[in-house]
Amino acid sequence: MEFFSLSKPADALVKYLGLWAPAERQQESQDIFAAASRVLARDMTVDADVPSFDRSTVDGFAVRAKDTFGAAETTPALFTVVGEVAMGQTAEGRIYAGQAFRIPTGGMLPDGADAVVMVEYTEVLEQATIAIVKDAAPGENVIHRGEDLAQGELLLEQGHRLNAHDVGALASLGMSAVPVFVRPMVSVVSTGNEIVPPGVVPGPGQVPDINGPALVAAASMLGCRARFAGVFRDDYEALLRACRDELDAGADALIMSGGSSVGPMDLTAKVLNALGEPGVLVHGLALRPGKPTILGLAGGIPIFGLPGHPASALIVFEAVVKPVLRVLSGESARTVVASEQTRPSVRAVLERNLSSGPGREEHVRVRLVSREGTLYARPVFGKSGLIATLVRADGTVRIPEESGGYEAGQVVDVYPWGF
Amino acid sequence: MEFFSLSKPADALVKYLGLWAPAERQQESQDIFAAASRVLARDMTVDADVPSFDRSTVDGFAVRAKDTFGAAETTPALFTVVGEVAMGQTAEGRIYAGQAFRIPTGGMLPDGADAVVMVEYTEVLEQATIAIVKDAAPGENVIHRGEDLAQGELLLEQGHRLNAHDVGALASLGMSAVPVFVRPMVSVVSTGNEIVPPGVVPGPGQVPDINGPALVAAASMLGCRARFAGVFRDDYEALLRACRDELDAGADALIMSGGSSVGPMDLTAKVLNALGEPGVLVHGLALRPGKPTILGLAGGIPIFGLPGHPASALIVFEAVVKPVLRVLSGESARTVVASEQTRPSVRAVLERNLSSGPGREEHVRVRLVSREGTLYARPVFGKSGLIATLVRADGTVRIPEESGGYEAGQVVDVYPWGF
Repeated sequence: MEFFSLSKPADALVKYLGLWAPAERQQESQDIFAAASRVLARDMTVDADVPSFDRSTVDGFAVRAKDTFGAAETTPALFTVVGEVAMGQTAEGRIYAGQAFRIPTGGMLPDGADAVVMVEYTEVLEQATIAIVKDAAPGENVIHRGEDLAQGELLLEQGHRLNAHDVGALASLGMSAVPVFVRPMVSVVSTGNEIVPPGVVPGPGQVPDINGPALVAAASMLGCRARFAGVFRDDYEALLRACRDELDAGADALIMSGGSSVGPMDLTAKVLNALGEPGVLVHGLALRPGKPTILGLAGGIPIFGLPGHPASALIVFEAVVKPVLRVLSGESARTVVASEQTRPSVRAVLERNLSSGPGREEHVRVRLVSREGTLYARPVFGKSGLIATLVRADGTVRIPEESGGYEAGQVVDVYPWGF
Repeated sequence: MEFFSLSKPADALVKYLGLWAPAERQQESQDIFAAASRVLARDMTVDADVPSFDRSTVDGFAVRAKDTFGAAETTPALFTVVGEVAMGQTAEGRIYAGQAFRIPTGGMLPDGADAVVMVEYTEVLEQATIAIVKDAAPGENVIHRGEDLAQGELLLEQGHRLNAHDVGALASLGMSAVPVFVRPMVSVVSTGNEIVPPGVVPGPGQVPDINGPALVAAASMLGCRARFAGVFRDDYEALLRACRDELDAGADALIMSGGSSVGPMDLTAKVLNALGEPGVLVHGLALRPGKPTILGLAGGIPIFGLPGHPASALIVFEAVVKPVLRVLSGESARTVVASEQTRPSVRAVLERNLSSGPGREEHVRVRLVSREGTLYARPVFGKSGLIATLVRADGTVRIPEESGGYEAGQVVDVYPWGF
């Protein structure tokens, strides 16, 4: 049997994201100290001005700016120090003409003051008198109330995945818990008569499952809850039952490894079509490695059929499964698709020619090697399916469908593994 | 007061890693399904050949290669099919001259066979006779026992942080649990008289703690266990007691936020020196933002003093704290330092000139903006310490100390936030 037609990975993804909208996601409240990497379940708007008071940005003296007019080294202006602002407290009293308050960085401006003169531009003449040798404009060295974040302003959007900076910004609003989406549960089903699960000693002709642990690891590293359903024989009824059990147990997505091609032993497509409507949406990617890939849906649940070769499975995971799982986690499809353009890479000199056949995109695994201060990308070759190549590559060089390949000596973008 | 001298961030890090060796780390056994992102506690050598038997890499017929000699479309060689290999089982029987076994991809070669002819190059003539139209070399379409991973071979080194590919490779060895280092406990101590912890409503002149949650988030995202010790007043005795409590509670590293400069209210250096020998090792970085930074050690425990401005604290965290925490987690210092060269970046066109003063390295926060298919790096300016700038930047452009800056229109490397 042959594939009817192959889809470009990017087209397959856009088609998929156009046909599928995730079910309404559950939310939960997450302690702010554990909110990193989670996805915001609501728009976060500023509910009160930040800062909530006019603050000094320097150590110095709070004054009325107009009183400093004309002050310079040669014509210092004299001020009477009438108070001192303590950190974290309301300034007591008020400033009138010719008066100043000592104020620390972050301190609250006293009433009447509209500028702060840095301590470097002042000189203490006697106990309560200072000379200011540089004039200050109104607002100088001051952050005004609401100048940083104004009440009602949108700080972060629903669907944004929080990094440490975002967590800091949310903390600045006084939040101690953050509304986030519940992490989706991804079930991984391994198939293959010769495969045994971790912990079982393989008999003659049997091999340990590789894709189960690797795909659970990949889904976990994206922030999903990932569950290993087990290894199942290439038996239609057994496989269908296993998948139904996972969906009944609440899986939000299902990844099947192995059996995704079009041979008589390949059951994934048939099982997927039996699990629910619309079933198989894409079968076959114009991607190497990764041609025998299935993207499907059953009752709104994303179901993937990945190739059995571990390296292929993980490259397909990166190309099409990861974006779908990100959307499933609550990120917006727009953000996820756009992030492809901002995917970071390492630039390295290609060590040897990489040619590519027509009609498919290639993701060539490479190792990064540093030699005399220069970084090289060394293609990792080896018979398909070798384990050793899994640990030798640091990422991939992508050869687009329309390109014939790259030449040795060219600088290429190496995309490190995303998980 | 002034800083005596400023250290280049890279020099400070090398100096630090030269003076400090982490205490012996504890190990634990981690289920393979939860081993992703963890650091290997032992060298992983291959304890038995992979594969453990000669395997076919294609669907076809197992034969003796010499019997196919001269076979071609015009001169097919005839074979008698004497058996079929079932997946996951030992082949029964043996191949003699002119005989073949059907064999699936991954199947175990029968005794006597040394090559597999792909099904595409065969034709079934009658029930037990096939014609082979292409000759096979010995070993063709076969992975030999131990060809992938030979017994005794080093697969992954102690100190390697596991990605999904590595997890798959370890699974292929038959492992169901992996020896990893216990994740270090990092305590975060916030200081500042005006600061209140999350959950406490700020009074007049007070502000919520930002750095505590942000630094806990950053340490967590590196795979550390991170604990918020609380907010403490700028009081020497209170701060010293708080830090001692954290060390007594088993902290493997301490991050103090605020009070890291050289003013009379800056207590971090004094507290650090009181906590143990050798105390402060580096005070002041030639980095903007991030000058008021302290790197120290007390009784083998890394202690950091970070600036109070959140954006500065996180940039310093990236530059010098993150590498130390990676080594603390079990990665080798060599790997950590080398990874700086392979740090991925996004290349973007700078939107406006960035000038830099002499004598310091600058990490300028930028936002990535896509316009008509081109990616631009837009510097995020704003008064120091603004919260809004925290969420607007996607990463930094680094201006080395010896550079005067970059010009608008230049393509620059943008380093996305590492946490």
